[in-house]
Amino acid sequence: MTGSLGGAALMRELVEDIMDHIRILNADEVSRLVSIPMALEAVEAAYAQKHAGQASVWPLLFHEFVDGVRDMDLKSGNLDGDGIWGLKAISCYYDNPERGLPVYHGTSLVFDYATGAPKAVLNAMPITRYRTGAAGAVGAKWLARKDAEVLVVCGDGGLCPYLISANLLALPQLSRVVITNPLHGRTSDERLGEIQASVEGLLSGCDADIPAIETDGLEAAVRQADVIMTATPSYDPYLKDEWVRPGTHLSCVGADKSGKQEVESALLARARVVADDVHQCLTVGECELPHEQGVLPDKFDEIGAVIAGDLPGRSSNDQVTVFDSTGLSLQDLATIARIVSQAEADGVGVVADL
Amino acid sequence: MTGSLGGAALMRELVEDIMDHIRILNADEVSRLVSIPMALEAVEAAYAQKHAGQASVWPLLFHEFVDGVRDMDLKSGNLDGDGIWGLKAISCYYDNPERGLPVYHGTSLVFDYATGAPKAVLNAMPITRYRTGAAGAVGAKWLARKDAEVLVVCGDGGLCPYLISANLLALPQLSRVVITNPLHGRTSDERLGEIQASVEGLLSGCDADIPAIETDGLEAAVRQADVIMTATPSYDPYLKDEWVRPGTHLSCVGADKSGKQEVESALLARARVVADDVHQCLTVGECELPHEQGVLPDKFDEIGAVIAGDLPGRSSNDQVTVFDSTGLSLQDLATIARIVSQAEADGVGVVADL
Repeated sequence: MTGSLGGAALMRELVEDIMDHIRILNADEVSRLVSIPMALEAVEAAYAQKHAGQASVWPLLFHEFVDGVRDMDLKSGNLDGDGIWGLKAISCYYDNPERGLPVYHGTSLVFDYATGAPKAVLNAMPITRYRTGAAGAVGAKWLARKDAEVLVVCGDGGLCPYLISANLLALPQLSRVVITNPLHGRTSDERLGEIQASVEGLLSGCDADIPAIETDGLEAAVRQADVIMTATPSYDPYLKDEWVRPGTHLSCVGADKSGKQEVESALLARARVVADDVHQCLTVGECELPHEQGVLPDKFDEIGAVIAGDLPGRSSNDQVTVFDSTGLSLQDLATIARIVSQAEADGVGVVADL
Repeated sequence: MTGSLGGAALMRELVEDIMDHIRILNADEVSRLVSIPMALEAVEAAYAQKHAGQASVWPLLFHEFVDGVRDMDLKSGNLDGDGIWGLKAISCYYDNPERGLPVYHGTSLVFDYATGAPKAVLNAMPITRYRTGAAGAVGAKWLARKDAEVLVVCGDGGLCPYLISANLLALPQLSRVVITNPLHGRTSDERLGEIQASVEGLLSGCDADIPAIETDGLEAAVRQADVIMTATPSYDPYLKDEWVRPGTHLSCVGADKSGKQEVESALLARARVVADDVHQCLTVGECELPHEQGVLPDKFDEIGAVIAGDLPGRSSNDQVTVFDSTGLSLQDLATIARIVSQAEADGVGVVADL
């Protein structure tokens, strides 16, 4: 039965690919198809496939068109287990808002691993926050204490509701959520209301208890945390080692460029540090500066090995754990593979001859 | 920047609602829009912009999915003068024909330099031959003798008619065309008829005299040549130095992978050698092995400088000149910029919300 279904699916795929067509999914369609549970499952699968040697991250391309004003980065890779390879290009034009245009454009082009034929073009902007929020939560799922109750999110920007939603789903034992803004002091009430509403929207239809989200000052928030998400673009390590209680888990998702750092190096020196990709963490992640300062080894573990059960997560309830999430093309590819499958099943998007 | 996270994030959300559009151009549409004159003008403009610092070639990405069976390469860059940046991904699956699928798929995704927004997705397969044929001819235009009469093309594959057509247009003084197949002996009559018909098709509507194309053996052909195009995938330098007359120009377009070589190193040692891109020529081009053997300097001239008039082309009627054309993303981008402009003007292709 399984064999004949596989054969039929393969035949359908071959027939379709002879026609050489491409599916275009716009921002609205992608937003309707993606979800927090999908992103959690996809990101975890991506890490696991990377560990199993079924995936690879290709070298990052970065180009600055106008220094400090216009740049783009292109992340790419292959995720054989999900039958996909491809790329995401994000352009960042700080002079766009003057002309009524968004700073960021994100576009993905993906290919069918089975044939090498182009498969889909997607507006990737909605995906980035889902997969980044999911990454922080997957780190917490595998490294935080099972009795962790208090989630603290540092940074109340666009990522914040995605991090909260993904954590509430991945760690159902959480009972309090505190947000703080290390760069601007306390989070404004206005922003808090927006975030609460976003989280409720993101988790609608999911079986999750959503607590009333609180705000607090940075130090007070960190001192009561069991799980911390750092999600600011800081170049100053605002999060002090001495504030962090034993047994706390941190997922650091903000540092994605050389020079960025949110957490004091001393904290990483005493923590069990797990990377999404060791090379990327040492070059652009939270680990970069501590490693340069000599407090981190050259090689450390990746989250995929922990998910696969090949390496332990935390070793005790007192251990501080850190997941350095720099963001991999594979997270996008895994999420896109699921979005495109769903779009094919539901007939969503424009299909054009190519 | 660090201080403006909240503001930037908010701004991003406000303007995120603006829907982008993307134009999809399929193989038939691209084939109808591209032309030999367009490719010649585009490729020359690309080289000139590279020299003027208005363009750059980004690092090549190459990945082998299954050793020797399935791979892909991704060439990318920016061409500011033409208002475009982007990429071309070519997948090469040698196991595809078993399943009735083509070995190669080529797809381009390009962006608007002015805004960073995605602009078009194209089937890039038809473009490669036009821009490669044009590259060989642009090299000859700037380096061959003004009284060159006999064009010899080594290799009678898919590129051959494109090289002939572009040369006939760029060098109207040519009066004879001889093709030869260094890897399989003389060119068959059947193949000759196809090539003649292709050239007539490619140049229909152009003001060009098309001579009756001849065939000859390799040595005999080379000994009478004024202009030579080498266009085979050879790893053996079949073209002997001693056969080449003083004053001959060679455009080498075949070598595009480490280890490939068509022309004996001794010929390059005595020639004025001009590159499309020095780094690429030294790593994957005709220059790679002669350079390793120590007969070429580390730095030499690029064609863009010759086109701009900043450096001389040939210095005498006796000098042998060589243009090493490895193929740059910029050639594709320049051609695509013109194709997309024409498609916009003519309303060709599918325009989808993104």
